[in-house]
Amino acid sequence: MTLIVALDPPPGAGDPLEWGARIIGETGAAASGFKIGLPLLLKVGLPGLERLASLMPPESLKIADLKLADIGPVMSSAAEAVASAGYDAVIAHGFLGVEGALDELADTCRSLGIKLVVLVSMSHPAASRIMDPLLDTLLEEAIRVDAWGVVAPATRPEIVARTRRRLGPGYIILSPGVGAQGAEPGAALCAGADYEIVGRRITRSPNPREEAFLVLEKQREAVSRCRA
Amino acid sequence: MTLIVALDPPPGAGDPLEWGARIIGETGAAASGFKIGLPLLLKVGLPGLERLASLMPPESLKIADLKLADIGPVMSSAAEAVASAGYDAVIAHGFLGVEGALDELADTCRSLGIKLVVLVSMSHPAASRIMDPLLDTLLEEAIRVDAWGVVAPATRPEIVARTRRRLGPGYIILSPGVGAQGAEPGAALCAGADYEIVGRRITRSPNPREEAFLVLEKQREAVSRCRA
Repeated sequence: MTLIVALDPPPGAGDPLEWGARIIGETGAAASGFKIGLPLLLKVGLPGLERLASLMPPESLKIADLKLADIGPVMSSAAEAVASAGYDAVIAHGFLGVEGALDELADTCRSLGIKLVVLVSMSHPAASRIMDPLLDTLLEEAIRVDAWGVVAPATRPEIVARTRRRLGPGYIILSPGVGAQGAEPGAALCAGADYEIVGRRITRSPNPREEAFLVLEKQREAVSRCRA
Repeated sequence: MTLIVALDPPPGAGDPLEWGARIIGETGAAASGFKIGLPLLLKVGLPGLERLASLMPPESLKIADLKLADIGPVMSSAAEAVASAGYDAVIAHGFLGVEGALDELADTCRSLGIKLVVLVSMSHPAASRIMDPLLDTLLEEAIRVDAWGVVAPATRPEIVARTRRRLGPGYIILSPGVGAQGAEPGAALCAGADYEIVGRRITRSPNPREEAFLVLEKQREAVSRCRA
């Protein structure tokens, strides 16, 4: 499947652990994985993240998206912590580069048996100005550390397509930005992504389960159109 | 004073809250402030960070160094969380840029009454290759959001000096890298920094209080030499 649910609790969601447990329960059958981030960590702590990971289907991707952006030892220490809490992938910024940063994190991920995902592009306006000129460099860093995958925004399918062309088929591309941020389900898949990450559209829906299956269906329709 | 102590618990430090409380107690008289990071957050959670902030002298800088590197709403949510825990400064990466990222974080910091510190350079080897060519751009982003200060590494005094020349006197420069990472106390101050951030050299010393005062003394000696 092609859907990853981002667990960012909305304001007024009540107890974030109960909220997360409910979303995981409702969307687990439609989602290939779940992604947690810094706001949830700040709310529930590592023990809370561990509890949520334990509720995710065993075969699902469990992605800790702390957007790591520090020197090697700090990122490695964070990777060890989230791996111990049951997460099997971490996201780090490509602009840190290899030497003294991603190299050490990649070694740590390998020894922990978890996946390293390198963020190479973002969707906010300033990213076009500052990060876009670096796209080829950041992809090169991801390749040099033999990352499992990269993150590139669904809101900018031309970036996803460039990323796929540069990486070839041997890497996973994860694309956030579908739904509330404006991309249609399937747009990133058609451009070459493997998974679309969807947050608010599903988690703030009155019926997250139904909405998750609707996103899957719309992804399938879009892919069958673009590959026709 | 010119010393900020980085509270990164070493392996085998035992209970991280007891460790942090001890370091704060021993070094509070020598330090102008304290800096916590992601590894400590992962160990003690936001309630633990709040407890440590409550032990820091009231007038000290209390810096949450999560190296924020995300879109505006996510960074703002993190800033609100650490401000609620008693921290009065946050560090975010300059490469995120203004529009849709630092602009929103800066607004949030202003409304919370906390300081925004923008990271413009780092000390690991890959940073020279990827971040250095962007230094002027990242300083420009810091100026555009009217940051309180910036972070530039003590291990590379020429970067600190370039940063001070570009920013003029109206911004605070914080420089990590003194001690275990190799910079001598005072090197960054002589290049134009306002504070040096020291971690392991003090926190892993058998006598953190004595070591903190020794660093202060060495800073004063270096500054009196370089300004002679």
